[in-house]
Amino acid sequence: MRINAEDERNYLQTVFDKLGFRKEDGALIADTLVDADLRGISSHGIQRLYWYRSMINDGIIVPQNHAKILKELPGAVLVDANQNMGHLAASLAMDKVIEKAKQIGVGIGVVRNSNHFGIAGYYVRKALDAGLSGIALTNTRPLVVPTNATEAFLGSNAFAFGFPASPHPFVFDGATSVVAGGKIQLADKKGIELPGNWVVDKNRQVVKDPKEAESILATAAFEEEQKGGGLLTLGGSEVNSNYKGMGNSIVVEILTGILAQGSISADTNTGKHDFSQFVFAFDPAFFGDVETLKANATSMFNRIRHLNHVPGKTIWVPGDREYKNLAENQKHGVDIDAKTIEQMREIADDLQIEMPAEV
Amino acid sequence: MRINAEDERNYLQTVFDKLGFRKEDGALIADTLVDADLRGISSHGIQRLYWYRSMINDGIIVPQNHAKILKELPGAVLVDANQNMGHLAASLAMDKVIEKAKQIGVGIGVVRNSNHFGIAGYYVRKALDAGLSGIALTNTRPLVVPTNATEAFLGSNAFAFGFPASPHPFVFDGATSVVAGGKIQLADKKGIELPGNWVVDKNRQVVKDPKEAESILATAAFEEEQKGGGLLTLGGSEVNSNYKGMGNSIVVEILTGILAQGSISADTNTGKHDFSQFVFAFDPAFFGDVETLKANATSMFNRIRHLNHVPGKTIWVPGDREYKNLAENQKHGVDIDAKTIEQMREIADDLQIEMPAEV
Repeated sequence: MRINAEDERNYLQTVFDKLGFRKEDGALIADTLVDADLRGISSHGIQRLYWYRSMINDGIIVPQNHAKILKELPGAVLVDANQNMGHLAASLAMDKVIEKAKQIGVGIGVVRNSNHFGIAGYYVRKALDAGLSGIALTNTRPLVVPTNATEAFLGSNAFAFGFPASPHPFVFDGATSVVAGGKIQLADKKGIELPGNWVVDKNRQVVKDPKEAESILATAAFEEEQKGGGLLTLGGSEVNSNYKGMGNSIVVEILTGILAQGSISADTNTGKHDFSQFVFAFDPAFFGDVETLKANATSMFNRIRHLNHVPGKTIWVPGDREYKNLAENQKHGVDIDAKTIEQMREIADDLQIEMPAEV
Repeated sequence: MRINAEDERNYLQTVFDKLGFRKEDGALIADTLVDADLRGISSHGIQRLYWYRSMINDGIIVPQNHAKILKELPGAVLVDANQNMGHLAASLAMDKVIEKAKQIGVGIGVVRNSNHFGIAGYYVRKALDAGLSGIALTNTRPLVVPTNATEAFLGSNAFAFGFPASPHPFVFDGATSVVAGGKIQLADKKGIELPGNWVVDKNRQVVKDPKEAESILATAAFEEEQKGGGLLTLGGSEVNSNYKGMGNSIVVEILTGILAQGSISADTNTGKHDFSQFVFAFDPAFFGDVETLKANATSMFNRIRHLNHVPGKTIWVPGDREYKNLAENQKHGVDIDAKTIEQMREIADDLQIEMPAEV
């Protein structure tokens, strides 16, 4: 069903109030979820609310805690999320990094003791809104099998990068693995076989049944007792350089879990359930006139969009789909799947609040 | 044939002297080439010498010019390679960035008016040698077809990242495309079909014949008149997320050609033949005790190496192969292919210098 984005925001804000978040913290988390739904990245929108609430009930997320800056240099900041949501600490870290980049050209920040932070692209767009270019990274639950391995160890580890352009910025945002887990759930909902080589079993045989794939990933991500298999790295097979996908994924592990001295993805399903994040921003204006750089980037993207291509196919530059979805969903409301609506109703009943109306 | 690495270095130093480089510039370029050959990355070793010399003869590389710093902020530097080799300007940029990272935690540098800079990993190891973590990027000739496109536009755009570990650092270094062009030449030399989905023709059909693939790439890289096709992005097919590989490649284009206001890869085969580079370093010591971070990273890599795996296969962590090659080649000499030896002889004859002896 479709609901108005502002109704979604009000619903979320009310839920986060009731769950014990500070007003401004709830508003920020709500904004990231609405933003994801507006951009059609519904895997990271309001459908996460039910999971967030269960982690609050389990004491993994503590809404009353506040993120704090532990340490600062002119170019770097270390933030403690203090077991509250990653959204809050990553925003704080990116705000500090933006200040630094405006003063000295560049800044980096690491967030420890964190939780899920929504879409990585949200923090990159904060940098873009400030006229800068930025990167945001997070580790995740263990889902991904390294080259030649038969068990999951690495996270699906998100990478987002943004750079100014017209009519909208370049925003590349996604899991470093071949696909994010959400794509498999989508295939299951549609009742189709997995179209690509996405998941392998404990013998490293490609799994085509979405239900079997979901079971493999759920076990890898959430159980201490493992049964093997998981998501492939980008590249898929060794002959198609899946070790490059593994390399990208390990780089994110290093810049998040290792730098933060938190759990690496492999250890987030046992003991401490913490994630870590990394943010980076720099000021393109140092390197040249920003309007010129932006025009040059725009020209490159337009040339890519209009290259000779397979008849009937479109060449999408990263960000194109999301900004197209944004324009449509701002007009028609965000589309929320039936299962999520059901979970929203359950939460509304429990907290005695109103459900958003269908548009 | 195998030659001693020190003999290779002396030969190269003498050649670079004769070609008009400053003593210290020739020594640095020689060091990067020997380093690549020692690590088994022979595609970026002495086999590039003949190409470098032809570009010097064509006036694309000017050995008498000196790289210079155009602009500096506490966290950023812009370097003009002044049409000399990329190795010289990228080293200068990384040296400045290392200084910055030691003072304020982080630094970034962009190099414009540059040429080929050898292996990206060389500059990352400079950061590692200074106790830091680093990144180095370069754009290249146009070789890579974006998702759904039927002509090359993006570069094979190298990405290297390093982080301290024992017994050797983590060094992830390679083209962002599914493979580097060198792998196709290797298949051709071996007389085998291309084992993976690496190159497509103008109809986006996968090419298995290495000679046809080489012809497609040579045309894409060096001719103004194009015939279509090129290297695939990592991921290969759309259903296996080749737009993620495209995204990684575009990120490198932005941070190199766009930021430097130089040619993007697509324009390096016409007009100005310049490449651009980007370097980054940060100080892990800001985030925690370096020995602890290094031990934690080492432990993660060891766990990856020992995961359950396909029987008979090895799980290599990025850097493992190169450091293994380094140990072997330091002992037995570097292995140089017959064609390169022939080219080295031609240069030796022209410049009236001695060839290195076979070991």
